[in-house]
Amino acid sequence: MKIAIAGLGTVGSGLVRLLQENGAALELRCGCPIKISAVSARDRSKDRGIVLDETVTWFDDPVAMARDADADVIVELIGGADGVALALCEAAFAAGRHIITANKALIAHHGIKLSEAAEAKNLSLGFEAAVAGGIPIIKALREGLAGNVVSGLYGILNGTCNYILSTIRETGREFDDVLADAQKLGYAEADPSFDVDGIDTAHKLAILTSVAFGCRINFDDISVEGIRHVTALDIRFAEELGYRIKLLGITRRTKDGVEQRVHPCMVRLESPIAHVDGVSNAVVAEGNFVGSTVYQGAGAGAGPTASAVAADLVDIARESRRPVFSFPAGNLLSLPTVPMDQHVGSYYIRLMVVDLPGVFADVAATLRDEQVSMEAILQHTPAPGAPVPVVLTTHDVKEASLKRAVEQFAAFDTVVEPPCVIRIEPLAF
Amino acid sequence: MKIAIAGLGTVGSGLVRLLQENGAALELRCGCPIKISAVSARDRSKDRGIVLDETVTWFDDPVAMARDADADVIVELIGGADGVALALCEAAFAAGRHIITANKALIAHHGIKLSEAAEAKNLSLGFEAAVAGGIPIIKALREGLAGNVVSGLYGILNGTCNYILSTIRETGREFDDVLADAQKLGYAEADPSFDVDGIDTAHKLAILTSVAFGCRINFDDISVEGIRHVTALDIRFAEELGYRIKLLGITRRTKDGVEQRVHPCMVRLESPIAHVDGVSNAVVAEGNFVGSTVYQGAGAGAGPTASAVAADLVDIARESRRPVFSFPAGNLLSLPTVPMDQHVGSYYIRLMVVDLPGVFADVAATLRDEQVSMEAILQHTPAPGAPVPVVLTTHDVKEASLKRAVEQFAAFDTVVEPPCVIRIEPLAF
Repeated sequence: MKIAIAGLGTVGSGLVRLLQENGAALELRCGCPIKISAVSARDRSKDRGIVLDETVTWFDDPVAMARDADADVIVELIGGADGVALALCEAAFAAGRHIITANKALIAHHGIKLSEAAEAKNLSLGFEAAVAGGIPIIKALREGLAGNVVSGLYGILNGTCNYILSTIRETGREFDDVLADAQKLGYAEADPSFDVDGIDTAHKLAILTSVAFGCRINFDDISVEGIRHVTALDIRFAEELGYRIKLLGITRRTKDGVEQRVHPCMVRLESPIAHVDGVSNAVVAEGNFVGSTVYQGAGAGAGPTASAVAADLVDIARESRRPVFSFPAGNLLSLPTVPMDQHVGSYYIRLMVVDLPGVFADVAATLRDEQVSMEAILQHTPAPGAPVPVVLTTHDVKEASLKRAVEQFAAFDTVVEPPCVIRIEPLAF
Repeated sequence: MKIAIAGLGTVGSGLVRLLQENGAALELRCGCPIKISAVSARDRSKDRGIVLDETVTWFDDPVAMARDADADVIVELIGGADGVALALCEAAFAAGRHIITANKALIAHHGIKLSEAAEAKNLSLGFEAAVAGGIPIIKALREGLAGNVVSGLYGILNGTCNYILSTIRETGREFDDVLADAQKLGYAEADPSFDVDGIDTAHKLAILTSVAFGCRINFDDISVEGIRHVTALDIRFAEELGYRIKLLGITRRTKDGVEQRVHPCMVRLESPIAHVDGVSNAVVAEGNFVGSTVYQGAGAGAGPTASAVAADLVDIARESRRPVFSFPAGNLLSLPTVPMDQHVGSYYIRLMVVDLPGVFADVAATLRDEQVSMEAILQHTPAPGAPVPVVLTTHDVKEASLKRAVEQFAAFDTVVEPPCVIRIEPLAF
């Protein structure tokens, strides 16, 4: 089987190393050797720590490579939701070649269109590497749990955010400070917004939702909230209340449709997912026969991502052709979005207040008027004259009511900062 | 696709329910409906809470069914390492039918022979349900981690033992007492020896080893120790030392071959696997590119097991033909067994002694002579006159040396019970 690789960055170089180091075992697994016939990368002379065979053809234009290379499979490792990556996939399918990609933005935005093109020609579109790095979660959902109707899943899908939240908790330092360090260490991009604003998690969640439910991808309707507003103070309060704060992607089928959301969550300390720290990823999926199953491992990096690409290569070599998103593209469900206003859950609210006795009466009246039932209240003796943090947690309440109450809190003269609201998530794992 | 089911116990009935409840989704995943064409079970009139189509043919003889039924796939849910189950599989392959089985004893003993028969005719032999219930661990190892050379894996593979150990820890009651309760609750068989003596775990480990390394199954060479000798006292000492006791199956490739062992382990409290309680299963696999990946879920029960059988059914419908044990049967490695005497690790040893000052000198001299280096010693003030438990933990030492030392301890006049030895296992997860 001949493959052409577009992009020789960290993952591309990792894939070359994997194919070389593990070539003998792969040949037995595939029933044939995997040969790199072509590559495309910006700089031919750059030292990537890899040695390519002299027979490998270099292409300057990855789209031309996808069209013209002597290859059965094109591996797309360039990135970007549109542009070259998309053009390359379309060219590959037009030329009758399989595609493997690690590109979550591309799949989240164009996955359905691409799956239609692939399935029309009985070609594969592999994207195991796009979600949760080396964890074979796409395969688990599409094949391992194929006997189940999946009711929902949730996971830690972004290592950068998980690292930042873990570090704030361990050090007590604030978000901006920890982010700057993460950037220096290479754990966060120069422009961190895709990660810390939750967009990367949403890309992955959109893909998982489609594979889990057999429905059309709906990235645009995901309710997305990042972690910029999470302070060391909130993380300390969370500990005091018995919670850890994690950025989760959550998707659930309800009788009304699908609820897809990305936001920081307070999860109980006893929950295993509370202890998934640093750059690890973890996904919990719930099927109607299997119950809860958990998958955990490295969510990024050259080795794990190359591992996922290689798994897709073996699938193609073994002629394992499946519907890309569990059901054939023409049969994918179109499930309505359940608006966040209808979400029912419990909430953590932190107010910074200057006049404690006054604010309590106002808060209580607002909660009563909006029919929000309070579970607990937490308040520490302040430094004299400084604003006092007051923390409320609620019982289950409709998000719309909660929002109206918080808007009123924000308008109080005694509340001197925008309230911080974090959802509390009861989880099976 | 037509299937015939041999055995309508808990799992067989669960499978019928799954195929009925989730039929529409399965048809989209498979590209065709799955129809039960035949069944074989002892009692036709028994109420199993399921309704079978009138077109289903009943067979009294499951082997005759495997040979004669109008079916593409035979599902073997009878059990037993030999006898009917084996005859049924051989008849099915001879007649050109695929086999799916939940029978770990059968696969551990005859898996290679059966895989040769299957592969010779391009038929499938699916046994996802034989290991770790609904967790798709066979698929993960054979396909999800196919790009890796796997260096080892370990797991909690027997829910009965895990439940018993969890319950001893939580209640302080002793093994026999907890086992009797587990039998009443249906968590343990009337004859519990397959579970509590580690044989069931060894069956599953033998299968995982073969799939992970692409080697021939070698059940007979597994070093197996059960949990009968684990006392509430040892579990309390473990807690004091920062450990939990779990029955693990462990397999590792070393430069000398394969080390396969099943025994109670002390694992650090911070290790996630220490917190897998009750009837859950968990497996941690280590690949040379992916690093550590973790899989967790329900290890038994009608729903999870039926879920695993259904995943194999979808694979067959999608014509996904792979080498049964990762590499083609003719290419499976024959790896030598590394004897346990060569195992290097640290150990927990509990002695019951009557003369404290005397025994310390003797123990110290023995350890010196056998070059066993002690890490810690633990001893509580005894009730007057009663034997005193003395706990030693060692640094890394070869098992042969440790065994010689323990044999000498056992011979001391001052040591009044056989010493309890439990291996301490440093784990990534």
